[in-house]
Amino acid sequence: MSVLLGQILDALGGELLGGGRELQILRIAPLDSSGHGDLSFLSNPRYRQQLAASQAACVIVAPAMREEAQARGACIVTDDPYAYFARATQWWKVQHAGAALRGIHASAVVHESAVVHESAYVGPLCVVEANARIGAGTMLKSRVTLGEACEVGERCILHPGVVIGADGFGFAPSKGAWIKIEQLGRVRIGNDVEIGANTCVDRGALDDTVIEDGVKIDNLVQIAHNVHIGAHTVIAGNTGIAGSARIGAHCQIGGAANILGHLTIADGTVISPTSMVTRSLPKPGFYTGIFPLQENEQWEKNAATFKQLYVLRERIKKLEQTLANDQRSNNGN
Amino acid sequence: MSVLLGQILDALGGELLGGGRELQILRIAPLDSSGHGDLSFLSNPRYRQQLAASQAACVIVAPAMREEAQARGACIVTDDPYAYFARATQWWKVQHAGAALRGIHASAVVHESAVVHESAYVGPLCVVEANARIGAGTMLKSRVTLGEACEVGERCILHPGVVIGADGFGFAPSKGAWIKIEQLGRVRIGNDVEIGANTCVDRGALDDTVIEDGVKIDNLVQIAHNVHIGAHTVIAGNTGIAGSARIGAHCQIGGAANILGHLTIADGTVISPTSMVTRSLPKPGFYTGIFPLQENEQWEKNAATFKQLYVLRERIKKLEQTLANDQRSNNGN
Amino acid sequence: MSVLLGQILDALGGELLGGGRELQILRIAPLDSSGHGDLSFLSNPRYRQQLAASQAACVIVAPAMREEAQARGACIVTDDPYAYFARATQWWKVQHAGAALRGIHASAVVHESAVVHESAYVGPLCVVEANARIGAGTMLKSRVTLGEACEVGERCILHPGVVIGADGFGFAPSKGAWIKIEQLGRVRIGNDVEIGANTCVDRGALDDTVIEDGVKIDNLVQIAHNVHIGAHTVIAGNTGIAGSARIGAHCQIGGAANILGHLTIADGTVISPTSMVTRSLPKPGFYTGIFPLQENEQWEKNAATFKQLYVLRERIKKLEQTLANDQRSNNGN
Repeated sequence: MSVLLGQILDALGGELLGGGRELQILRIAPLDSSGHGDLSFLSNPRYRQQLAASQAACVIVAPAMREEAQARGACIVTDDPYAYFARATQWWKVQHAGAALRGIHASAVVHESAVVHESAYVGPLCVVEANARIGAGTMLKSRVTLGEACEVGERCILHPGVVIGADGFGFAPSKGAWIKIEQLGRVRIGNDVEIGANTCVDRGALDDTVIEDGVKIDNLVQIAHNVHIGAHTVIAGNTGIAGSARIGAHCQIGGAANILGHLTIADGTVISPTSMVTRSLPKPGFYTGIFPLQENEQWEKNAATFKQLYVLRERIKKLEQTLANDQRSNNGN
Repeated sequence: MSVLLGQILDALGGELLGGGRELQILRIAPLDSSGHGDLSFLSNPRYRQQLAASQAACVIVAPAMREEAQARGACIVTDDPYAYFARATQWWKVQHAGAALRGIHASAVVHESAVVHESAYVGPLCVVEANARIGAGTMLKSRVTLGEACEVGERCILHPGVVIGADGFGFAPSKGAWIKIEQLGRVRIGNDVEIGANTCVDRGALDDTVIEDGVKIDNLVQIAHNVHIGAHTVIAGNTGIAGSARIGAHCQIGGAANILGHLTIADGTVISPTSMVTRSLPKPGFYTGIFPLQENEQWEKNAATFKQLYVLRERIKKLEQTLANDQRSNNGN
Repeated sequence: MSVLLGQILDALGGELLGGGRELQILRIAPLDSSGHGDLSFLSNPRYRQQLAASQAACVIVAPAMREEAQARGACIVTDDPYAYFARATQWWKVQHAGAALRGIHASAVVHESAVVHESAYVGPLCVVEANARIGAGTMLKSRVTLGEACEVGERCILHPGVVIGADGFGFAPSKGAWIKIEQLGRVRIGNDVEIGANTCVDRGALDDTVIEDGVKIDNLVQIAHNVHIGAHTVIAGNTGIAGSARIGAHCQIGGAANILGHLTIADGTVISPTSMVTRSLPKPGFYTGIFPLQENEQWEKNAATFKQLYVLRERIKKLEQTLANDQRSNNGN
C-alpha cells in the first residue's frame, strides 16, 4: 500500500524541493537502508555523508541541508526533521491501520464502578478494577491491569502486561516476621503518558504514587510506592525507582539505572544507564556510575586490586611523607 | 467514610491518652503530611520534631514518647508503633473494602485437577494449571499463572502478572546448538508469602524450587530453577537469583541485586541494592558492591584509571622498593 | 509412575553396562541427591567422587568413566552424557505429560487474520494480533501477547507473560515534550527459539527486530527495537539490550547484563553477568565488568577512594618524578 508524497505534505506541511507531489511512497525507512519508494530523514548532521548515497525517494532535512539535499533529489525542508519524521510515522500509522481503537474488548474484565471514557480503549484480557478511571483517548493494550481507584489521564498508552496499582512493598518487622502494611494509596497518572510492556507502578502506602504529564516509561521498569515523577521525564527499560523517590521534570534516566528511595532528583537531570543513585541530586547534571567492561583476565586483576584501594591510598600517603621527610632532611643537610 | 478512634482501639488495643474515643478518623497518613482527621504514627525517634508540628487527630507512639505526644493531643501508646500502624492499615482495609475476596473468578482458567481451597481467591484472567494446589486464604490477584503441579501455601498473596512454574533455563550444548532440558521439578511456596507484580519463579529442573514461609518478594524479581529461599527473607524489586542458589532465612536482599547460581548465603545476611554476589557468604553480615555515582566528567577520568588499577599498584610497589633501597643505601653511608 | 530402563535405551540408545533393562526408573535426579529408582548422570569429571557414593539405579556416563561406573552398578555409556540426559528429560516428559499440546485454547484472543499452524499451540488467555504468524510446533504458553504482524518460527516456546511486538521506545524531543515515533516495524523470530516468562521483545521502529534460529532467552529480559540476535545465542534473565544493538551468533550473555544501543558484538562473545557493554566488541572473548562485593565497611572506604582514583594516579606520577629527579641529582653528585 503506497501513498503520494503530496498527501504527506498536505497533512504535515514542509517545503517540497527537487521532486514532485506525485512521487509514490511505499515505506518510511532509515537513511542508511532506504531505497526507491522510501521516505527518509536526516536529523543529525553527523550522518550527512549518508545523504548523497541514499536511494530514498525523498529525504526530510533541515534548512541548513537544503542545497545538499536538493542536489540529490526530492526533499522536504522543515525546521525540525526529527519531529517531522515522528509526525510522519503517526500519519502513516493512521493511513495503514485506521483510526485508533476505542471501546472495551469483550474479553476485558472491567468493574462496573470503573469509569472508562467513551473514546478510550481497553484491549483484550485487560483487568480494570473498582473505581478506576481512564481518560479520553487512552489505550490499554492487551493484558493490562489497572488497580482499584487508580487513575490514568488522557491520550496515554499502556502496553501489554503493565500493572498499575499493585501493592507497594511495605512490611513492618515484628518478632522475626513481617506484618503487611496495607497499601491504601492510589496511582495517579497524568496525560500523554506512555508505559512500556510489563512495567509495574505500585500504589502508594498512604499517599498516592504520581506520574505527571508527558512521562515516557520503557519496558520492565519498577516504580515503587509513593514515587513522584515530574512531567516529560523519560525512563528507559529495566530501571528501578525505590519508594518515595521524587524525580524531577524533564529528566532522562538510562536503562537499568536504579534510584534509591526517599531521594530527590533535580529537574533536567540525566542519569547514565546502569548507574545507581544513592543520594539526592539537587543540582541538575549528567551523572554516571558504570563499571568499566574489560577482558575477563584484566578485570580479575583490577577487581582484586580494587578491594585494597584504600590501602593503596594509605601506601601513597606514606610514600609522600617519606619523600617529604627525605627532602626536608636533605635540605637540612 | 470515617471511623471512630474507639473502634480502632477496640480492634487493636493500645493505651489512649490526651483525647477521646469519639474522635473521627478519616484517613491514615504519614506524620509529616497529616492533618485534621488523620491517624498517624511515629516509629523512628529521628522524626520526633515532626510530632509537635503535626495536625494529626491522633498519633501512635512508643512509651518513651508518652509525655511529648500527650502534650500535643490524642495519642495511642504501644510498644511497637510501626507494627501497630501496620495492623491499623489492615483493619482499615477490611472496614473500607470489606472482607477478602474468595472463590474463582469466572474469567480465570483453572484446570479441573487443580486443588483450590474454598477460602482462597483466584482473580480475573488467572491461569491455574493441572495438579496445582492453592492453600487456605491465598489470593491470586489478576493475571497470575500458577504452573502445573506447583503449590502455594496459606495466606499468600500473588500480585498481577506473577508467573510461578515456568520452565527453568536449562539447555545442554550439542554441536553448536542447545538441547532443551525439560524442567521436571515444581515450585513449592510456603505460608504467608507475598510475591510482587510480574515476578517469576521458575520450576526446578529435577528437584523443586522452594520458597519458605513468610518470604516477601517485590516486583519484577527473577527466581531461577532450584533456588531455595529461607523463611522470612525479603527481596526487593528487579533482583535476580540464579539457579540453585540457596538463600538463608531472615535475609534482606536489596533491589536490583544479583546472586550467582549454586551459592549459599547465610541466614540473616543483608545485601545492598544493585550488588552482585559472586561467591557464597557463609558468615552473616552486611555486604555491598555499589559503583559510586559521580558527575560524568569525574566518572570518565576515574573509570579510565580503574582500567589500569593493578598497574598503579605495581607502580606503588616499585616506588616503595626504590625508596627502601635509597634509605638502605643512605643508612649504609 | 515408573518406566523400565530398557524403554529409555530403546528410545535414546547408549550402551547399558552393569545392570538390566528391567530396572525400574521412578525419577531422573541429580547425582548428589539420587536414590534407589533414580536415573542420574555424570557429565563433569569434577564430580566423579559423587559417583561411587550415589544410590542411583543407573548413571549416564562418558566412555572415560566406564570402569568406575560399572563397578558401582548399572550405567549407560554415551559420548555426551549431558546431551543424553537432556534428551532423557524430553522423553520423560512425553511419557508423563503426553504429547505436546496443540490448537488454540478457547480463552485465547486470536485475530481472524492471524495465521496459526495447525500443530502450534496457543494457550489460555493469550492474545495474537492481526496478521501475526505462528509456525509449526510452536507453543505460546498462557498469557502471551504476540503483536500485530509479528512472526514466530517453528518449534519455539514462549513462556507465560511474554510480550512480543510492543512498541519500541522512540520519541522525538520537541519544545520540552516528546512526540511519539510510531513503531512501524515487526518482530521476526526464527525456529527453535525459547523465550522466558515476562520477557519483552519490542517491534522495530522502521525495520524489524530479529531473533535468529536457536536463540534461548531467559525470564524478564528486555530486547529493544531493531535489535538483531544471532543464531544459538543464549541470554540469561533480567538482561537488557538497547535499541539497534547487533549481537552475534553463539554468544552467551550473563544475567542482568546490559548492552547499549547501536553496538555490534562479535560471534561467540561471552559477557559476564551484571556487566555493562558500552562499546562494540569486534573481537570474540570473555568480557567482565562486575563490581566486587565486600563487607559494607570495606566497601565504603574503597568506594570513597575510588572517587579520587585519578587524583591518586596523579600523586603516583608525581612521586615517580620526584624520585627520578632525586636519583638524577644523586647521580649528578
